[in-house]
Amino acid sequence: MRQSVLVTGAAGFVGRYVAQAFENKGYQVHGLGWGKFPDFRDWGLTSWNESEVSLESLVEFAGKPDVIVHCAGGSAVGYSIEHPRQDFCLTVDTTSHVLEYIRRHSPETRLVYPSTAAVYGQVESVPITESASLKPVSPYGVHKLMAEDLCRLYATQFGLQIAIVRLFSIYGKGLRKQLLWDACQKFNRGESTFFGTGEEIRDWLYVCDAAALLMMAEVHASTACPVVNGGSGTGTNVAMILNALALAFSVDIKPAFSSQSKPGDPDALVANIESAKSWGWLPQADCVQAVAEYAKWFLQEGN
Amino acid sequence: MRQSVLVTGAAGFVGRYVAQAFENKGYQVHGLGWGKFPDFRDWGLTSWNESEVSLESLVEFAGKPDVIVHCAGGSAVGYSIEHPRQDFCLTVDTTSHVLEYIRRHSPETRLVYPSTAAVYGQVESVPITESASLKPVSPYGVHKLMAEDLCRLYATQFGLQIAIVRLFSIYGKGLRKQLLWDACQKFNRGESTFFGTGEEIRDWLYVCDAAALLMMAEVHASTACPVVNGGSGTGTNVAMILNALALAFSVDIKPAFSSQSKPGDPDALVANIESAKSWGWLPQADCVQAVAEYAKWFLQEGN
Repeated sequence: MRQSVLVTGAAGFVGRYVAQAFENKGYQVHGLGWGKFPDFRDWGLTSWNESEVSLESLVEFAGKPDVIVHCAGGSAVGYSIEHPRQDFCLTVDTTSHVLEYIRRHSPETRLVYPSTAAVYGQVESVPITESASLKPVSPYGVHKLMAEDLCRLYATQFGLQIAIVRLFSIYGKGLRKQLLWDACQKFNRGESTFFGTGEEIRDWLYVCDAAALLMMAEVHASTACPVVNGGSGTGTNVAMILNALALAFSVDIKPAFSSQSKPGDPDALVANIESAKSWGWLPQADCVQAVAEYAKWFLQEGN
Repeated sequence: MRQSVLVTGAAGFVGRYVAQAFENKGYQVHGLGWGKFPDFRDWGLTSWNESEVSLESLVEFAGKPDVIVHCAGGSAVGYSIEHPRQDFCLTVDTTSHVLEYIRRHSPETRLVYPSTAAVYGQVESVPITESASLKPVSPYGVHKLMAEDLCRLYATQFGLQIAIVRLFSIYGKGLRKQLLWDACQKFNRGESTFFGTGEEIRDWLYVCDAAALLMMAEVHASTACPVVNGGSGTGTNVAMILNALALAFSVDIKPAFSSQSKPGDPDALVANIESAKSWGWLPQADCVQAVAEYAKWFLQEGN
């Protein structure tokens, strides 16, 4: 019998890639989340269940899958500052529901939880290992850490099999927010000035690599609740990324920077990815090429 | 004009003493929580509002008080293991509602949050200072720590004025659970054997002293979200407490112990209370005398 996976938030940016990755491996993939998507089969789903993520909706729709990847949740620092209670509900409360569903109704289901590098917060040194101190600075980061804490609790206290992947800067076709999206829109308007110094270093991971890692995490889910970083392991500064994007955009724009830094924005965020590598995972994408594809997608479909 | 305080969970064990302490100081005291209590005025309340703790009920009933003491929440390790989702809702979700109420509707309100020594979990050495590592081992402890984390978030991110008091073993008349309660019931049945070694050391704080500290915390609530231990600063072993209780019970019973320890139960939990003392607070109760009063209360009204 085919293995089955439930992807919550399967209509979101990461969720769609995760669904597709599992479908490519022969899983039966079910999706749960908000929105109407008559074309859900095109992105690898056997079923799409339009509902909030709650114990009740999980009992109704989840069908005791072999795996749940809980992609639903808050996904933006800015939103979490504007709407902290909603971000709490999206991230922490839904995770509580998913864990309780597994505990009470489907204890054999393995859970993969996509967390974020934002749980590290103020970073003392890079590359960051998973044992670094956790001092998130935004509601988004605090809520993701709380969701992690719930995962660890249910793994140790109730024997759930869980793995956590802390994703760094995920990008790829379909992402309609954050640096690359904002930059494409600026280029489109003929603007070229960006906030910050351009020297800020981030760890960019192509979304297909992230999806592959989340899929691999399923195998390692256990009551020990392992945590691995999901990054490329390489730091790239913002100026480099934007120059590559501008080049691919075929506009005669040279990104410039305001030199103002956002308070609390770390200078450098780079993942130590030895843990994920020890699972046999390796990021495959070439960053410059992937950024070029993003620009191409934006020009054709994104804007 | 009289200062006003809202005590959530004002019908609970600690909540009642907190309400009474504020009333004694001249505050107008409002209560919010479950249950019907026609005699609410007898315990110092100006109003009793029967409702769950939610943003909606707070908007309806809280009336922008000067202070909120959020006593509502889960209060038992055993319950949290049996009903983790409910304990999460009682402790974490209600705290999220209280914080959001203050942020959106009453930003001048100061919040006092009664937390617990259970957030320390596996204790490395005693006495425990507030900077000790936080490794809670039960759902109850994890959820209380998550509620603390939310308090710290709202203080730093949104400027709420908050203080946290980590209560150790609180006891006193009216407490119908835990060691003293169970022991009185055993004595009543003529039983004398207790779980454990009798050598387990706990820090017993009389509930009136705890209420005085929670009231004092209001003055120190700030965006720095200070945390202080609420204990007596003295470790007392279980055998001593039970011997004092048996004596006061006037029964010819000598408590005996099974010698089995609960896995994960720390040998010793004693608070370093220098932080609370620096506020000018000092515990007043004599433990043997207070235990005797507990026995008297049990014999007259408790059973």
